[in-house]
This record gives sequence, structure tokens and C-alpha cells, in this order.
Amino acid sequence: MNSSKLLDKAVDQFASLPGVGRKTALKFVLHLLKKDPQEVDIFLQSIHELKTNIKECRKCHNITAEDLCEICSNPTRDTTTLCIVENIKDILSIEATAQYNGLYHVLGGIISPMEGIGPADLHIDTLLERMEKEPIREVIFALSATIEGDTTGYYIFKKLKDKEHLIISTIAKGISVGNDLEYTDELTLGRSITHRIRYSFNNE
Amino acid sequence: MNSSKLLDKAVDQFASLPGVGRKTALKFVLHLLKKDPQEVDIFLQSIHELKTNIKECRKCHNITAEDLCEICSNPTRDTTTLCIVENIKDILSIEATAQYNGLYHVLGGIISPMEGIGPADLHIDTLLERMEKEPIREVIFALSATIEGDTTGYYIFKKLKDKEHLIISTIAKGISVGNDLEYTDELTLGRSITHRIRYSFNNE
Repeated sequence: MNSSKLLDKAVDQFASLPGVGRKTALKFVLHLLKKDPQEVDIFLQSIHELKTNIKECRKCHNITAEDLCEICSNPTRDTTTLCIVENIKDILSIEATAQYNGLYHVLGGIISPMEGIGPADLHIDTLLERMEKEPIREVIFALSATIEGDTTGYYIFKKLKDKEHLIISTIAKGISVGNDLEYTDELTLGRSITHRIRYSFNNE
Repeated sequence: MNSSKLLDKAVDQFASLPGVGRKTALKFVLHLLKKDPQEVDIFLQSIHELKTNIKECRKCHNITAEDLCEICSNPTRDTTTLCIVENIKDILSIEATAQYNGLYHVLGGIISPMEGIGPADLHIDTLLERMEKEPIREVIFALSATIEGDTTGYYIFKKLKDKEHLIISTIAKGISVGNDLEYTDELTLGRSITHRIRYSFNNE
């Protein structure tokens, strides 16, 4: 194979990454061409290792190298609270806040008729199984503040609402911390007024 | 190695690509995690093949799978014209215009005291060798319209100016085709006035 074909093939592959066009892909490829072969080997090796060793957690569909993920197998986590997220990126975001100590359940997507994703395509069946088996007392929806996110939350809410004593909540939607009121969009501002939080004098 | 370490390692590697931050790198990694293992193998294979088979052209420092690149070894190219470029991306750009049929010489960078790149770091010695050996009658500088580009061009120009009968030119700088005059910056507009092209009635 000649050099332009080899180059094109590598560019095609990088251009298949989300948000990467052919110009950026070419930039990446030329960058790798300039690097030491050993460095490129480390690059390839890291992806290969990740892909061969990482699988889905049997319980929550997070990524893991073992049977259960680091969160599910962590004995210090609160097993009575379950946070429902769309994908593992959301777990990383929430973990980074250090404000949550419960377990997660990754849906693997969001209900989106436009993209042909229905409830059956998501890990809702395994969620309902977990609700039976595990001592879960609170479910928190941490889904995107979009129509799809709301639809997905409402769909699961309906499936869970017959469970007695189960607390179901969703993460608060409102103006971003540090954001100017002036630059907050109307919908967000509207929601943050509807769901206003009452000041309390006794710190409760 | 646990899953977060494997993930981190792959994210680190992608984040080392030019213009890629950790958020984008994570997006790439999660995208690859979702893909079929075969597809990821093709991705890795294409980079590996590129890196193992591609080397520098012995003459012009373009990329090639052989000893000489496709341009240097093409008998239909005009061997009397040499276009000097910073990197192989520039060759791809100029080739895409289909307006040039001569040979190239890749400098592998540009003189930039700020980044510690001097003339000795560029392929100027091999350029001067080529000037002795090859039947080159015209040298065209196709370098960026920056101070660094101008400096590099001027440096090489000084090395070449004693060669008799050698035509030395630089690509035209002016307003972009299709661009509104109103939105062209002053420097470019100034250059395009200085280097104005005379209308000719006899099509010459």
C-alpha cells in the first residue's frame, strides 16, 4: 500500500471519532507520525488494553475490569440510594463533585424517538430487577434537562411509583453557580423560580 | 490495573494529541469503548501500519512507503521547479489545488527563535545539496504569511541568491478569493495593494 493510502486510512479512522473532521484527523495523524515509535506504541497499547480489559459492571453497567465495578464493590458506599444516569461519563462527573456516596445505574442512553431509541434499548429491565433485589430506598434521576431526559425520567418514574416508601427525586435544575442572572435562559430561570429553595433559620 | 486507571491512561494518550483536552479525550475513549472490538482493532491497525511503513522521502522529506515519495518518483513532474514548504500538510494542500506540477522540499518546521527552532533544525542543508545536484531553475517559497515564514524565506533566499539564473519567488499574498474587502485585515489588504496585478489586454 502506498503512503497516501496509508495516510488516508489512518485519517478516516480518526475522522470517525465524535466531532473530528478530516482536517483535525489529519492533524492528529501527522502529530503521531512525528512522534517516536515507542510513544505511538504506548498510545496504541493504552487503547488496546482498555478495550480488552474493560467490560460492563454486572450490576450497574458502569465500566469495570472486574465482575463488579469499583463503586458497586466498595463497601463504604450507601447501598440504599441509587442514582440513575444516562452514561458512564455522568458517573465520572458526579463522582468528581464528591457530593454523592450512593450507587449508580447506567441506562446506556436516553429515550429518543427521533433517534429510534425506545425504553427497550435502555437498561431499564435490569434497573427494575435491582429494585426488587437490593435495599434501595431512594432513587435519584440525574438525567439531562432536555425533553428526552424528562421523558426518560417520567417513564421510569411510572414504573417505580407503586413501590411503597420509595423516595424518587431528580437533581435540581436552576441557574448555574456563579452565573449572572442576566445571561440565564428563560426556561432555566423559570424552573429555578418554580423550584425555589426556602431559607431556613434553624439550619435544616 | 483497575478500570479507572485503564481509562485514565487512554484519556492521557488522547489528550496528548494537538488541541485535545481531557474532556474531548474522554469523549473519544468512551466512543471507542462503545464500538465493536473489531472496529477498534481496525483503528489501531491503521495507525500501526502507518507508523511502521511510513518514512521520510530521501530527497524531499515528504512521507513515503518507499525510498522516494510519490511526487519525487513521478516522471511526469517538472523537476526544474522546487516548492519549499514547512511541512507535509502544506504539500497535501498545494496538491489539492492541482495548480502545481513541480517538486517539493519539506523544511520540517520554520525558523522561530521563540520556540528555539533555528536554521540548523530545518532541512536546509539537504535543500542546498539538492540545489547543486538537481536541475532546479525556479524555487518557490510557499511558507506561512507570518514573521517566522518571512524570516525563514529570507534566510534561505540569502543562501540561494548567488546562484546564477535561479528564479526565486514566493506565493502571492492578498485577499482570499471570495472574501469581502470589508472583512480583510489591513496588513493583507496592504500587501495585496503593494503586489497588485496589472490587467493586460493581450492575455499575457
